[in-house]
Amino acid sequence: MKGIVNVISTLVDEVKFVVDADGISMKAVDPAHVAMIEVDVGKGAFESYSAEPAEIGIDLDKVKEVLKLAASGDVISMEQDETHGRLVFKVGNITRRMNLVDTSSMSDPKVPQLSLQAKVDIVISELQKGIRAAETISDHIALTANADSFELSSEGDTDAASLKLEKNKLLGIEASTEVCSRFPLDYFSNLVKAVPADTNVRIELDNDYPVKIAFDLAGGNGTVGYLLAPRIESD
Amino acid sequence: MKGIVNVISTLVDEVKFVVDADGISMKAVDPAHVAMIEVDVGKGAFESYSAEPAEIGIDLDKVKEVLKLAASGDVISMEQDETHGRLVFKVGNITRRMNLVDTSSMSDPKVPQLSLQAKVDIVISELQKGIRAAETISDHIALTANADSFELSSEGDTDAASLKLEKNKLLGIEASTEVCSRFPLDYFSNLVKAVPADTNVRIELDNDYPVKIAFDLAGGNGTVGYLLAPRIESD
Amino acid sequence: MKGIVNVISTLVDEVKFVVDADGISMKAVDPAHVAMIEVDVGKGAFESYSAEPAEIGIDLDKVKEVLKLAASGDVISMEQDETHGRLVFKVGNITRRMNLVDTSSMSDPKVPQLSLQAKVDIVISELQKGIRAAETISDHIALTANADSFELSSEGDTDAASLKLEKNKLLGIEASTEVCSRFPLDYFSNLVKAVPADTNVRIELDNDYPVKIAFDLAGGNGTVGYLLAPRIESD
Repeated sequence: MKGIVNVISTLVDEVKFVVDADGISMKAVDPAHVAMIEVDVGKGAFESYSAEPAEIGIDLDKVKEVLKLAASGDVISMEQDETHGRLVFKVGNITRRMNLVDTSSMSDPKVPQLSLQAKVDIVISELQKGIRAAETISDHIALTANADSFELSSEGDTDAASLKLEKNKLLGIEASTEVCSRFPLDYFSNLVKAVPADTNVRIELDNDYPVKIAFDLAGGNGTVGYLLAPRIESD
Repeated sequence: MKGIVNVISTLVDEVKFVVDADGISMKAVDPAHVAMIEVDVGKGAFESYSAEPAEIGIDLDKVKEVLKLAASGDVISMEQDETHGRLVFKVGNITRRMNLVDTSSMSDPKVPQLSLQAKVDIVISELQKGIRAAETISDHIALTANADSFELSSEGDTDAASLKLEKNKLLGIEASTEVCSRFPLDYFSNLVKAVPADTNVRIELDNDYPVKIAFDLAGGNGTVGYLLAPRIESD
Repeated sequence: MKGIVNVISTLVDEVKFVVDADGISMKAVDPAHVAMIEVDVGKGAFESYSAEPAEIGIDLDKVKEVLKLAASGDVISMEQDETHGRLVFKVGNITRRMNLVDTSSMSDPKVPQLSLQAKVDIVISELQKGIRAAETISDHIALTANADSFELSSEGDTDAASLKLEKNKLLGIEASTEVCSRFPLDYFSNLVKAVPADTNVRIELDNDYPVKIAFDLAGGNGTVGYLLAPRIESD
């Protein structure tokens, strides 16, 4: 839960949760329209869940504060107080009330349907290593996949760094031909660092196309999909 | 010892220790006269103790430095070198000499005798939780006690947070009627955070009156009393 | 390895490694000519080693980045790519290439041959304690050795701190007469803090002469010698 809120908050400050009888979902695009995130959490992810359909605008910084108050194992309860337009969180003996944010000005981003050629299944900690190596080299990172390996690489004026993972270091790889796209390192890094280290993610990739990174949440009761636009080489 | 020096140093930079054959005591008021602290440490708290009556002016930052040099278990010795007007600390193989501060300009604050209606006995770690919840909401905190519960609460323009402790979460509570006072969060927080997490404290409270927080030191060989002025609601 | 790179980088940003069939060596003087370091690492320190004689100019900040990528136990490989004038490091699956620095403008400092009266063998962690005590007192530190003890001391306008180590706290001491020199605390502290805490070092000392600090590296396959100019009392 903490991880997801962190990922979303790298893109937007406020977000609209769509609540219905089956669960909670949200979509967000950053103001520069470079990245998009889509999160669905089914009611099975909660200890108990009952909800009327509603749209709730939330300030993510405040949610992060609430999550910080919780020790691991604490049950967090969340209730909407419709009379006052407030959301009420309870963590142990602590009660935290916060005003809702007006959702009327929030847009509903459309998630594009992409069919990308290469699919890589990988533990996120491997990507985290590759990012650390790239950080001082350049402000973009290239992802390359072929039938046998997946590579993160970064090229600067004088220096270069790369992390190459052969098939046996991956959970799976599918690519009929070699594909490669470059992405802004800061966005990619914000996402990858916010995901818990032992998470399995699926990366979908093509030539100069967005990358799609998807993974499960809360024991399979939720899903996260993240789309990041490529940086097309202009020179 | 480290904790106490930290508490005192949130109020004043320099302090006058009054030393006599039975122990050491000090009183300090912050320059704004919002908070007062009184510390008494009996000679039983020391491995060995021998002293002539004296008043010693000490720069607390320097004492903090000395305490940082000590590993836990190290015996710290403190001696007054009257010839040079210096205090000599020994920590293991390290000798640290420091000039004394002139005490002639330091006032002797009078500790007011208050008789407050409500008494709450509580482990300080509970207060620490409540303060963390209040921190982003407002710059003051309200303490409320009645016969059954003790509550810390904080109210901002759009948000609110509270920690409510029922009788069974407290070590004891006595209040014939409900009392409530508000206090500046920064002072309250500085004190509460400086006290070791497992310390039992007694809080004495009344309506729009100072709060008194008292606890034992050094296995009962010392006592600390802290008084904090209320913030009276003006609107 | 990390420690040594840190020590060197407190003196210079770029350094010339002299490589031959037997190992790698380097010498560096800081721009103010206050301190000099000389490092020799024999080929026995490496898992495998093969080299043509060469002079390699390296940016130490980049080497520090590479070392940060390595988990303990990782084998780091280093190769020179002469065609491109690059150095190629491999840490696990990560490949990091960096341009070499031109060595033509780097001078070859001459290491003075000194014969100093006192010799002290000591675990570096003892020095680290003494430095922490001196840090807030003054910007220089005096080292004193006689037949029975070794002392680090620091004297300020109002305060003083010293760490005195009797013979039984030392690994060894040789001094026919008492000798003492003062040194700039920042240089001394940078060296002492960069050395791993359990390293045995030999200190050679005389009256108002440079101090020499020497220790082994990589299980005896390397040596480090560090010379620091004294600060002569002018008043």
